[in-house]
Amino acid sequence: MQMIESTSNKKIKELAALQRSKKERTQAGLFVLEGDRIIRDAISTRRELVDNVYVSATYASEKGLPTENAVVVADSVLSHVCETVTDQGILATVREEPLLRNEEELESFDRVLILEDIQDPGNLGTIIRTAEAAGIEAVIMSNGTTDIFSPKVVRSTMGSILRVPFAYSGDMQRTIKNLKESGHTVYAAHLKGASDMRETPFEARRAIIIGNEGRGISDPVADLADVRVFIPMQGEVESLNAAIAAAILMYHQ
Amino acid sequence: MQMIESTSNKKIKELAALQRSKKERTQAGLFVLEGDRIIRDAISTRRELVDNVYVSATYASEKGLPTENAVVVADSVLSHVCETVTDQGILATVREEPLLRNEEELESFDRVLILEDIQDPGNLGTIIRTAEAAGIEAVIMSNGTTDIFSPKVVRSTMGSILRVPFAYSGDMQRTIKNLKESGHTVYAAHLKGASDMRETPFEARRAIIIGNEGRGISDPVADLADVRVFIPMQGEVESLNAAIAAAILMYHQ
Repeated sequence: MQMIESTSNKKIKELAALQRSKKERTQAGLFVLEGDRIIRDAISTRRELVDNVYVSATYASEKGLPTENAVVVADSVLSHVCETVTDQGILATVREEPLLRNEEELESFDRVLILEDIQDPGNLGTIIRTAEAAGIEAVIMSNGTTDIFSPKVVRSTMGSILRVPFAYSGDMQRTIKNLKESGHTVYAAHLKGASDMRETPFEARRAIIIGNEGRGISDPVADLADVRVFIPMQGEVESLNAAIAAAILMYHQ
Repeated sequence: MQMIESTSNKKIKELAALQRSKKERTQAGLFVLEGDRIIRDAISTRRELVDNVYVSATYASEKGLPTENAVVVADSVLSHVCETVTDQGILATVREEPLLRNEEELESFDRVLILEDIQDPGNLGTIIRTAEAAGIEAVIMSNGTTDIFSPKVVRSTMGSILRVPFAYSGDMQRTIKNLKESGHTVYAAHLKGASDMRETPFEARRAIIIGNEGRGISDPVADLADVRVFIPMQGEVESLNAAIAAAILMYHQ
């Protein structure tokens, strides 16, 4: 069995670059997936997206190769390019092909989530995971949103990154106008909203906008919403964490 | 103006120890608070808990001393003991005195949150912050829950740690029995729950149990709940993040 034994191996250097840099990911059109369960799921359900699979020598001897052409890597060398603390001895490079190919497809979805400039990778990943659970059919992100293919986001989605249709939008105002034209009621989560979420049942065909962790939703975007809703808050809390606010609104009926 | 200029100063060493170790915090009965706004709030609303305030030389010259006896520290020395990346030049040591002194006080609260073995500091802090906003009146944590006074938890609470009454319980089963005897309906968030949250309006006098990130609620504790509720999940999501599940249930009517 051939095995990569050096961190200066070309493939290992490529993996490290993909983990480190958005530019490298975009150029290669690839991102890195980690974890046994999620990679096996990817191989069985979205085989066409999986580029290469890398396993540690220990993984290979204990569990065998997950694909015929999986590459075996010395344990310490694979650990070197793993981002997770609990390294499971398996990595895959996966093509950056979102399920949502263009914004026109949004017309076919009733439940859309719009994210403006979410910065924290853990928040973005958690939002994508919660979106799938809450039945959101597509997620649109502003270009100022953190890179969804970065290791921390990918990990926090717990696999939802391969199942939730998403796209980045270069023109949020146009995106929202298009959604309104296709019959979506647009709700903006806003600290100064006029409508208490609890007194605002949501329309079935809808888009919910969640803004940046510090600044919230920008005025031009908030102005386009049909309804600005606030989540009632007791005590002296000034705002909720962005992923928490998104979850509460995505689960709101 | 006297100023601490060395990281080997006794007070600076104590600060570093409090940041680093639960044992040191427990022995001293103190934890560290960071951030301008939150420390000024603590000084004005809970002065009796504030032990010492430390400010950087830059802070002192730009904003003055927040208390008469605040200690001035050279910028680089204070940075050395700051946990936050965006160091605001101010730290305070605060007494570890929770607002909830004993479990008997729980009788006077209608809305209680129970946490069993939450491990992630960010999750715990976010849960405390969300609890205040959702109108939770007291939080009870199992002894296996991560230390609420650790820097990451304190920071994630965004100040709620000084406002939400909480206590650790050494006997979760007794705690839950006591709550039931005092008329609380106990809801356990459970992946195998029998009741869909959406079809289960919560009683006004209630306690909600949230379990560990990986294992959920232990069987002996779940068995004591009056109702096991599940949050409906679409797609292939196996579970929600613990802070997200807690938020959805705390905001559930």
